[in-house]
Amino acid sequence: MNLFGRQTWKFANNIYLNAAGTAVGPMESEGPLGKYFDKTYNNLHCGQKNWELAERQLMEDAINACLHKVKMKPEDINFLLAGDLLNQIVSSNYTARGNGIPFLGVFGACSTSMESLALGAALVDGGYANRIVAAVSSHNATAERQFRYPTEYGGQKPDTATFTVTGAGAALVSKEVSDIKITSATVGKVVDLGIKDPFDMGSAMAPAAADTIAAHFKEMDVQPDEYDLIATGDLSGVGAPIVKMLLKEQGYDVSDNHRDCGLMIYRSGQQVFAGGSGCACSAVVTYGYILDEIRKGNLKKVLMVATGALLNPVMVQQKESIPTVAHGVVLERAEGGQ
Amino acid sequence: MNLFGRQTWKFANNIYLNAAGTAVGPMESEGPLGKYFDKTYNNLHCGQKNWELAERQLMEDAINACLHKVKMKPEDINFLLAGDLLNQIVSSNYTARGNGIPFLGVFGACSTSMESLALGAALVDGGYANRIVAAVSSHNATAERQFRYPTEYGGQKPDTATFTVTGAGAALVSKEVSDIKITSATVGKVVDLGIKDPFDMGSAMAPAAADTIAAHFKEMDVQPDEYDLIATGDLSGVGAPIVKMLLKEQGYDVSDNHRDCGLMIYRSGQQVFAGGSGCACSAVVTYGYILDEIRKGNLKKVLMVATGALLNPVMVQQKESIPTVAHGVVLERAEGGQ
Repeated sequence: MNLFGRQTWKFANNIYLNAAGTAVGPMESEGPLGKYFDKTYNNLHCGQKNWELAERQLMEDAINACLHKVKMKPEDINFLLAGDLLNQIVSSNYTARGNGIPFLGVFGACSTSMESLALGAALVDGGYANRIVAAVSSHNATAERQFRYPTEYGGQKPDTATFTVTGAGAALVSKEVSDIKITSATVGKVVDLGIKDPFDMGSAMAPAAADTIAAHFKEMDVQPDEYDLIATGDLSGVGAPIVKMLLKEQGYDVSDNHRDCGLMIYRSGQQVFAGGSGCACSAVVTYGYILDEIRKGNLKKVLMVATGALLNPVMVQQKESIPTVAHGVVLERAEGGQ
Repeated sequence: MNLFGRQTWKFANNIYLNAAGTAVGPMESEGPLGKYFDKTYNNLHCGQKNWELAERQLMEDAINACLHKVKMKPEDINFLLAGDLLNQIVSSNYTARGNGIPFLGVFGACSTSMESLALGAALVDGGYANRIVAAVSSHNATAERQFRYPTEYGGQKPDTATFTVTGAGAALVSKEVSDIKITSATVGKVVDLGIKDPFDMGSAMAPAAADTIAAHFKEMDVQPDEYDLIATGDLSGVGAPIVKMLLKEQGYDVSDNHRDCGLMIYRSGQQVFAGGSGCACSAVVTYGYILDEIRKGNLKKVLMVATGALLNPVMVQQKESIPTVAHGVVLERAEGGQ
């Protein structure tokens, strides 16, 4: 049995994250992690004629960069598990059409990065796949148009708003020995404490992150200091303090080892309100920067918790509050290929 | 290893579909399969103040009916794998919020019914869950509003159009012995032969169905006559003949044992154009009628292939063609609890 408690998986085999690929837009490439990304674009169109095609290009770039590092082709992969923020996860659908990999579409808003990685790792561990690719994307302009207002409208935003990351990340998972292992994962519950403001996702998502992190600690029977880093996806400057507070209320002190990807991806001078968000936020920070830190030995064990606001504009118009979810995956340095 | 070929799973353990629940709207309850559904509503509002809430009610009803049959509560379930046609699979998100089951959102348009069932069966088979619930929903009025025109506009449709089923289906999967087994599944590739007409989903999806069915036959090394029934999800009167023709071109004759759920759910006199469609079409026909036929012994082995048009209105406006996907699951009568 690989199930611990109700919602946590501990993988029986050595499951490896063999390679990852990232592609980002201009703001992200100019941020403090810019040098960690495989492909960078200096404008939001990414060489395409519209923003939706640009987002698709980013996801294709990320997958291609990932496969290129291990000299593999789409034919070598059993399944692509992918999702994105566009309605009907359409960036993923078209990417899967292009590369022909049997496709499992997943959606957990910005938590999709770790949902796809967790499910993919389980499929490899259980012998349902030799190799999977998990991928996500988001794009600032496609997200603004779909979830909020047309960019041209120039709507003003409060400081609690987040800035959707333009980018994509992909990871290849298999049992083939590599330098990074995926050892466990915790699937989140949907949490909703009543936030209705689509310009304050950090407050909405922090309780889901806390719920998943606490469930992980309990079901794995570990304490926060088990991890060199506990990273959340995109809680931003508003949500990051809340998750720490909520965990402290449950007896878990993560003040020393918690960081939020939404606060890591941009410099303080960049105009991004409370910080970065979007599927790609956790994905590019994890698959770009965090994996590199693990490889270098600066981090040995990381709990990466991607956070998703399951926001739908029609529901906001109907005065519903915003449900949220968070999924966690543990990444470890594989010492001596173990 | 549970992987056969590139994209097919054969489950190592006896995996059972223990119970299912279905809920439908007025047109479906008046159709030829009306008596097989657990909960029926005589109007599209299903007792709710708007259509989105109605769809959510249907999904909750289906899950509740399913759990009620085996006297279980949400707390007894490890994971809910669910998706629907609404943007951000929002019916599923709110349903997961309500019942508190750890949640894995999936999306494959109308193929989501078998995507969720296949993934859920793999998680149970591999020891990643003791019990999962797979659920999907669709609603005629929410789908019309989102994908096409507001219903009030009264837009005319061609005969190739399909009619989105109002309903929801849920299935409980575990290793606990029951009368129906899930024995294998084939995950589909995204196929797109260039159809751009959102009023002709049958033509768009038939090639994906043929691709998945042929892959299943090859990877399982079986012939069509292995199955008493090969059912497709919602190809309708337009797509059903096409899938037969495409399979015949590949040497597979399914003329005797193929049926399409979109042609089964409504009577010939009902105003549904080419037939039913939507996530719920394959789900309620499978979880209502087909399971009952298997239990009665009228069917012993069924390959259920749900078909999804990965349609997004923005992509249609941008002159893109419609990618499609199909996922197949094999359901068998468990003789003497084997």
